[in-house]
Amino acid sequence: MALDPKIADRLKRTPDGLVPAIVQQHDTGEVLMLAWMDDEALHRTLTTGRATYWSRSRGEYWVKGDTSGHVQWVKHAALDCDGDTILLKVDQVGAACHTGDRTCFDADVLDVSGAP
Amino acid sequence: MALDPKIADRLKRTPDGLVPAIVQQHDTGEVLMLAWMDDEALHRTLTTGRATYWSRSRGEYWVKGDTSGHVQWVKHAALDCDGDTILLKVDQVGAACHTGDRTCFDADVLDVSGAP
Repeated sequence: MALDPKIADRLKRTPDGLVPAIVQQHDTGEVLMLAWMDDEALHRTLTTGRATYWSRSRGEYWVKGDTSGHVQWVKHAALDCDGDTILLKVDQVGAACHTGDRTCFDADVLDVSGAP
Repeated sequence: MALDPKIADRLKRTPDGLVPAIVQQHDTGEVLMLAWMDDEALHRTLTTGRATYWSRSRGEYWVKGDTSGHVQWVKHAALDCDGDTILLKVDQVGAACHTGDRTCFDADVLDVSGAP
């Protein structure tokens, strides 16, 4: 079994065959992290309900939580208007970030000096 | 003036010098879109408070709303734990999507058949 061809036809991938996936906590709306998927990772995510990514650094599939226990149960998935970004709404068990923070965006806030 | 070197040193860019920016409505938490920034686009965003991207298709800077009126006022910006993704929380005027939809993720929902 592979990714539904009707979905695969709509995907626009980077030169290395990947699509970024934005991961959001389904009830609070927190943006948890961004990860990368190829067709197979998206197929596994949609058919298992467990968020599954392609690790660019390790060059392997990565079922979120298999090592850490910090599973992401997928509640909702969508493609954007161009087919080049995925949005997953998940129920995140524990911390989303490998640092132990709830989200990957908690630690490094940038100053917006021009904000009106 | 260029991007603060303390920020530039933390950025991890794609081979073409870009970083993906997740754009979220600051009060409702809706994920509106994903766009791309180089150092200059991030510098302009942080110093003007207007979300400014690099258009990969047109090969030019793009101040969101300059053509459409659908401005994004930046309320908050953060880097993720790896420095390879930006999160912007904005106040979106009108529709974020060029199709007229409020977000770019409204139109193409994927079935998650494996969800528990």
